[in-house]
Amino acid sequence: MTDAAAKLRFGPEIMSRIEELAAISHDRGALSRHFLTTEHKAAGELIKRWMEEAGMKARFDAIGNVVGRYEGVRPGLPTLLTGSHFDTVRNAGKYDGMLGVVTPISCIKALHEVGGRLPFAIEVIAFADEEGVRFNSTLLGSRAVAGSFDPTLLDKSDAEGITMAEALRRFGLDPARVREAAHDPQSVLGYVEIHIEQGPVLLNEGLPVGVVTSIAGANRFVVRVEGLAGHAGTVPMNHRQDAAAAAAEMVLYIEKRCQAGDSLVGTVGVLEVPNGATNVIPGAAQFTIDIRAGDDAVRKAAVADVLWEIEAIAARRKVKNVVTPQHEAHASPCASWIMEHIADQIRAEGIEPRYLASGASHDGMAISDLTDIGMLFVRCGNGGISHNPAEIMTVEDADLGARVFLNVLRNFPARERASMTR
Amino acid sequence: MTDAAAKLRFGPEIMSRIEELAAISHDRGALSRHFLTTEHKAAGELIKRWMEEAGMKARFDAIGNVVGRYEGVRPGLPTLLTGSHFDTVRNAGKYDGMLGVVTPISCIKALHEVGGRLPFAIEVIAFADEEGVRFNSTLLGSRAVAGSFDPTLLDKSDAEGITMAEALRRFGLDPARVREAAHDPQSVLGYVEIHIEQGPVLLNEGLPVGVVTSIAGANRFVVRVEGLAGHAGTVPMNHRQDAAAAAAEMVLYIEKRCQAGDSLVGTVGVLEVPNGATNVIPGAAQFTIDIRAGDDAVRKAAVADVLWEIEAIAARRKVKNVVTPQHEAHASPCASWIMEHIADQIRAEGIEPRYLASGASHDGMAISDLTDIGMLFVRCGNGGISHNPAEIMTVEDADLGARVFLNVLRNFPARERASMTR
Repeated sequence: MTDAAAKLRFGPEIMSRIEELAAISHDRGALSRHFLTTEHKAAGELIKRWMEEAGMKARFDAIGNVVGRYEGVRPGLPTLLTGSHFDTVRNAGKYDGMLGVVTPISCIKALHEVGGRLPFAIEVIAFADEEGVRFNSTLLGSRAVAGSFDPTLLDKSDAEGITMAEALRRFGLDPARVREAAHDPQSVLGYVEIHIEQGPVLLNEGLPVGVVTSIAGANRFVVRVEGLAGHAGTVPMNHRQDAAAAAAEMVLYIEKRCQAGDSLVGTVGVLEVPNGATNVIPGAAQFTIDIRAGDDAVRKAAVADVLWEIEAIAARRKVKNVVTPQHEAHASPCASWIMEHIADQIRAEGIEPRYLASGASHDGMAISDLTDIGMLFVRCGNGGISHNPAEIMTVEDADLGARVFLNVLRNFPARERASMTR
Repeated sequence: MTDAAAKLRFGPEIMSRIEELAAISHDRGALSRHFLTTEHKAAGELIKRWMEEAGMKARFDAIGNVVGRYEGVRPGLPTLLTGSHFDTVRNAGKYDGMLGVVTPISCIKALHEVGGRLPFAIEVIAFADEEGVRFNSTLLGSRAVAGSFDPTLLDKSDAEGITMAEALRRFGLDPARVREAAHDPQSVLGYVEIHIEQGPVLLNEGLPVGVVTSIAGANRFVVRVEGLAGHAGTVPMNHRQDAAAAAAEMVLYIEKRCQAGDSLVGTVGVLEVPNGATNVIPGAAQFTIDIRAGDDAVRKAAVADVLWEIEAIAARRKVKNVVTPQHEAHASPCASWIMEHIADQIRAEGIEPRYLASGASHDGMAISDLTDIGMLFVRCGNGGISHNPAEIMTVEDADLGARVFLNVLRNFPARERASMTR
């Protein structure tokens, strides 16, 4: 095998399988594939066949995940989990999730071809729902595996009024048996996932891969500011209680405060003056806040400062404000021993490991309730755009990602396995 | 007559007539009265009757204004014009416009009752359209009087598709003869108007009346900012091109810059992130700018600074901006000799004259094309709110306003009349 051929040992297969999966969509001309649909079944069957061809025993589990097991040197050994999701957002990119399904299958196929057996088993899980589009509740597949699936969700309905329980039945599953998808923590060694970054950090630094330190925790708020509407011509500037100007000051504070932390980000995605008119001083304004950080203490400090400053700005400008919390999730830190293990495999390729937090959520958030987690990020192109058909990555990066990930799997550290007492 | 009775010589009549006019409305429970409607006709007939009872010869003119003439010591003398509008916005306050129609009628009635004749004639004009609600074009009544009515407006249609020409015919007027409403500049001495302030300045300073220095000029713009949409979790703060944060910085600059001038005001009344979502960095934002000042140089300097700073903020934040001008009107300064005359009449009541610009537009803007103008502002309550049913003023202020205005009329300065060469 030449060096050039070795370099592309995995990339072409990964890219062609991602294309095959992307063709299985509810919508023509746009990739949309949701939980418990015929497209879910079709894509799952394709993944199951690839798993079997790679030497795994594969099955749909009780929530609709596809689980492929590659036994170790003897059957029934403790298991390293890997995988990612194969559902999508609406009008999605092809690589989000899918890269982490097809890469480990190609890695295990390579092991299988040389008869390689490890001192542990590996299970590749293609998670049936991470994005949560159909039932507006995310991480359904990985929560079932982690044993934290909330059974009250079975009564939730989709846009057409079909409950999740009914959708499971139509898929050929028994809603009463979802808990059987859960894994025994005692049997599990850890969880590793390969995923596109969905952001520009690796791209801008010229690095093909990076080590995830944490999946960010998040707070979301809606803020309503109430001032006093007035005639844009007749109320002097120093008599105004302008809700939009107050909101603008809050927006800029959020931006400035969230520049003060490494993985910290703060976004005002919605901003509006309800019924605003050119010649009327805004009597009300409304905006959203989304603050995330890989470190909960960093996030909470930023949130506290932002809420204090909103009060201070409102008081100084004599406007009222109502801050309504919408959502809070704690961070899911990656285990340092898995991070170091992934970093070692990156160094083995001659690349200095770049550590970065994930601002997006991933299946690992749910799996961290079951076992220690680690993630390998792969660079994406196009400014890091994701959840969008413009999401791209290169075959070379897919190939390098797979080479690193194969080593992450086969060199998975024995010492931590031995000492694990979770 | 006792002092107390003297104090309320005019107020009760003015307030009761304003109530009578407010009852003539298209809408039940809200005051809305628009150009060339049956309510316009009914209110005009009532005003015409009051004019006649006050000793004036009254008529509807060619645009639907009601014009009452009170001759001087002999018929046909040069004429001092006064008046205001009797149309309204939708869901209006009662005092806007109407105060300046009924007050001079009460003043002239008082002159007439004692047989007072002045060395000039006075015409009270109740303008048929200032607000421009029906045909979306303002100051129709006063432009016709000033001779600056644009005849192409006759083809404009209202919301029901009725052209202004047709509406004039249905009202009993001939659209071909609108120009006959114009006054000869040689016959006119000046124009004075009494109007509520529609703002909080006099209220906050505890002053019942003030002298208007200028009717503000105005610029309006729509600004669109284009950045780069992105995932709120995955794009680090220093990689963002956030259109809403850029817009917020622009909004705050507009507010700060417009605090730097006496009559200068700047308002962002519309502010929005089109299709914004909590977890998406805004790729676009849009807002309006309304900048006004009594002094055109002050306004133009502020506009220039704002446009420069928008460019600078956009360049620094690597976002694009498109600024679209919507409207520009120059200021209509009040004539200093009329301002001084009004100030003298205020001083005669023991009140120090407060000079202030009008941020709202008035019929005087149009009449300033015909003759020199001056305005007396009367305090309104409720924070200065206007164009709203919450618009209020007191009977005492109505009375004081009329006392001052009677003196403005009867003492109108002879020297300037003699030297006028417009």
